Amino acid sequence: MRQVNIQLDQQGRLRHFLTIEGLKRQTLVDILDMAESFATVGEQTVKKVPLLRGKTIVNLFFESSTRTRTTFELAAKRLSADVLNINIAASATSKGESLLDMLANLEAMHCDMFVVRHADSGAAHFIARHVPEHISVVNAGDGRHAHPTQAMLDMFTIRRHKGEFGSLRVAIVGDLLHSRVARSQIHALTTLGALEVRVIGPRTLIPREIADLGVHIYHDMEQGLKDVDVIIMLRLQRERMQGALLPSEHEYYQRFGLTDEKLMIAKSDAIVMHPGPINRGVEIQSSVADGPQSVILEQVTNGIAVRMAVMAMVLGRQGEED
Amino acid sequence: MRQVNIQLDQQGRLRHFLTIEGLKRQTLVDILDMAESFATVGEQTVKKVPLLRGKTIVNLFFESSTRTRTTFELAAKRLSADVLNINIAASATSKGESLLDMLANLEAMHCDMFVVRHADSGAAHFIARHVPEHISVVNAGDGRHAHPTQAMLDMFTIRRHKGEFGSLRVAIVGDLLHSRVARSQIHALTTLGALEVRVIGPRTLIPREIADLGVHIYHDMEQGLKDVDVIIMLRLQRERMQGALLPSEHEYYQRFGLTDEKLMIAKSDAIVMHPGPINRGVEIQSSVADGPQSVILEQVTNGIAVRMAVMAMVLGRQGEED
Amino acid sequence: MRQVNIQLDQQGRLRHFLTIEGLKRQTLVDILDMAESFATVGEQTVKKVPLLRGKTIVNLFFESSTRTRTTFELAAKRLSADVLNINIAASATSKGESLLDMLANLEAMHCDMFVVRHADSGAAHFIARHVPEHISVVNAGDGRHAHPTQAMLDMFTIRRHKGEFGSLRVAIVGDLLHSRVARSQIHALTTLGALEVRVIGPRTLIPREIADLGVHIYHDMEQGLKDVDVIIMLRLQRERMQGALLPSEHEYYQRFGLTDEKLMIAKSDAIVMHPGPINRGVEIQSSVADGPQSVILEQVTNGIAVRMAVMAMVLGRQGEED
Repeated sequence: MRQVNIQLDQQGRLRHFLTIEGLKRQTLVDILDMAESFATVGEQTVKKVPLLRGKTIVNLFFESSTRTRTTFELAAKRLSADVLNINIAASATSKGESLLDMLANLEAMHCDMFVVRHADSGAAHFIARHVPEHISVVNAGDGRHAHPTQAMLDMFTIRRHKGEFGSLRVAIVGDLLHSRVARSQIHALTTLGALEVRVIGPRTLIPREIADLGVHIYHDMEQGLKDVDVIIMLRLQRERMQGALLPSEHEYYQRFGLTDEKLMIAKSDAIVMHPGPINRGVEIQSSVADGPQSVILEQVTNGIAVRMAVMAMVLGRQGEED
Repeated sequence: MRQVNIQLDQQGRLRHFLTIEGLKRQTLVDILDMAESFATVGEQTVKKVPLLRGKTIVNLFFESSTRTRTTFELAAKRLSADVLNINIAASATSKGESLLDMLANLEAMHCDMFVVRHADSGAAHFIARHVPEHISVVNAGDGRHAHPTQAMLDMFTIRRHKGEFGSLRVAIVGDLLHSRVARSQIHALTTLGALEVRVIGPRTLIPREIADLGVHIYHDMEQGLKDVDVIIMLRLQRERMQGALLPSEHEYYQRFGLTDEKLMIAKSDAIVMHPGPINRGVEIQSSVADGPQSVILEQVTNGIAVRMAVMAMVLGRQGEED
Repeated sequence: MRQVNIQLDQQGRLRHFLTIEGLKRQTLVDILDMAESFATVGEQTVKKVPLLRGKTIVNLFFESSTRTRTTFELAAKRLSADVLNINIAASATSKGESLLDMLANLEAMHCDMFVVRHADSGAAHFIARHVPEHISVVNAGDGRHAHPTQAMLDMFTIRRHKGEFGSLRVAIVGDLLHSRVARSQIHALTTLGALEVRVIGPRTLIPREIADLGVHIYHDMEQGLKDVDVIIMLRLQRERMQGALLPSEHEYYQRFGLTDEKLMIAKSDAIVMHPGPINRGVEIQSSVADGPQSVILEQVTNGIAVRMAVMAMVLGRQGEED
């Protein structure tokens, strides 16, 4: 079997986790199943399993993100791995060292995994193409491109609430243009066989090429939310807005904010998701975020289990080869 | 038994540790006794006990304090807990996330304890009022309000040197107005039954309402130090001084600095304490700080044991419920 | 036996590791032999040994260096020690606390080792002179003075490739004036009995007194590299250059950069070393840095083993006394 996907090793097993795109359905299901086995670890008195004891995991953050760094650090520690946090902005690049030389150094120290966060799309792939056999790379968000562990924790949360994907209508709402997680979600939902994936947002924030991914585009909540089982709200990336893509936050909220009223358009048992951090009163009404249909905090809890699963899977693979 | 104290659970056991105020004498004695059992851990070859293995403790510092963060981190690691350091100034709040949403996220990650440092009085209480049942909050200093673990390590140090509190005269000297630890010390000494608690300082740095706490106020070292068994010097919080509350550091030292000469006014076996970091030549003479009556560095050592005791007590409580 | 060397305890065993100067050949050989026993730890599935479990090691960095901090942190964690990272620039000194008071506090917390990085020459010695019996100090680079663990990892790398030192000609090339590691390398090579140590560089970057260390000085690569077995390139410390010690980077590269052409002057099996981070095209040609004679990344790998050896040796000594 010939594998050209850089994420897989020669046996077709997951070696890196860079993007959902190109992965098989079974690989995603394996991640979800393994995450299920870790989901109870967080509730135990001793929240630790010894799976990755003696492994060294490096959080390589070229872009600061306390929230994401924290979830990966917790997941790694609960797997008993050693964790190094390296903030590159404040680091060696100031001495003029190239990125590849810095990576080569970390590799020489026998690190096992790089968890990479970068403002540029494709950065995690670039790094994965240059690491030796014994290193795995996990993408913790790169530019507008992908945020695959976030998408997988969303899938995990959906499966826990809704079971199989084949009968589900899912709407992703908001700023698709700047969202790294939306692309990953669409790939995951499509691969897992969701009945229909819709994206809803203003024309300025929906890139045209997104239709190529097999989604239905809506510019109106009334129509877009009708009959959906799952609503995924996206964060309005105000800090990324450049120029006047939006008339005003107020008008945005009027048209695309998820209010109690708009929520009633969806199925009565629809769940509401959000990758966080939420902008209350901007893309979502507080009463919805905190309401009975919201599973936003469950997503956070599930994020630890899913990240543990991804880490254990890519590094466990190496163990099997020994 | 009805408990209105937010620090206690329904069985009256310590759940949070926010302030000394309102705690019973027996609770304080329990902390001191448990700290006694940890006091030897720091001298062992393997400075670790497995009590909190698999627990996740988050240092949530809204105000930078390497010294305090270090002592809590060490205490947690010696209890075998996993520690996350989160510096909030540099963190998610820049993305416009509310404090409560950030806490809800950390809670969803199954963290067990927040060690909170904040420049605003009442911040730790605010957080404690909003966390779910499985989370404990420890106040690591909030504004001018309280610093209860510091006060307890002071009590521990006093008890080790002087035995019971009932016969002790204790003087707290200096900037009472800006001191978070002084209030906690007064509550602890009063609760533990000290014979007399005195505060000594210039009128501008002694808030009037402090008399309500049952202390005697002195504005003169000659009178205030007479017959005392314990002298607690406070740090002159120069970085907090706003406006001209003091004539000059030099004059302050002349009147309220603890010199060899002034130390002789107290009992000959009086001990000298200071929460650190000390300002040599400002509130204390170097020869006193380093002299035979000084127990300042013992306080630091005891601080690890006392923080271990507080952490083990509030989290151990949860374990018993399971 | 009278020992005046501050690095040794009364039994002549290594207590601190501050400088190579003054250490006996056997001590260096012991470090290399112990490092050999740790060299395989990094290749194991579980990269951990329990030697320093329950010990507290403090990375005390007065000067930021992610690379060096990372190697010490990894070495400590692979020995199962607890690690505290303290960045002093951002720390207590801003509250006006003196260095010695800060150290006294860390000592009182029963820390076992300070790994010290400082921009001033002699800082690690200063600290070592002031710590109590139970604390060991390891110099992680002080000003222009010494970087002894770096020199020892270089020796380890040389021994692995070349065996005994007695027949070796070693050339150290570049900016000797600002290099902390060059002095340490010269002392190590001399103590280990290298046949000849040469230094090569422009007159402005070779301090005259270096001849007193028993090296031969060259200002020309043609002559200096002839017959050498080992070439140690130094980093051009551009950030330390003050004033016009160099005509231009381009001219420097022409005269002292290690190119494929100049490498051919040395013995055909000569190895090329560099402490990193490398300036490609400034002191070394990329094809040399990445070529078959380069052992630069092996140095990084060996750095973990050597730092583990130094830490285990100075702290293991204490264990034996118990």
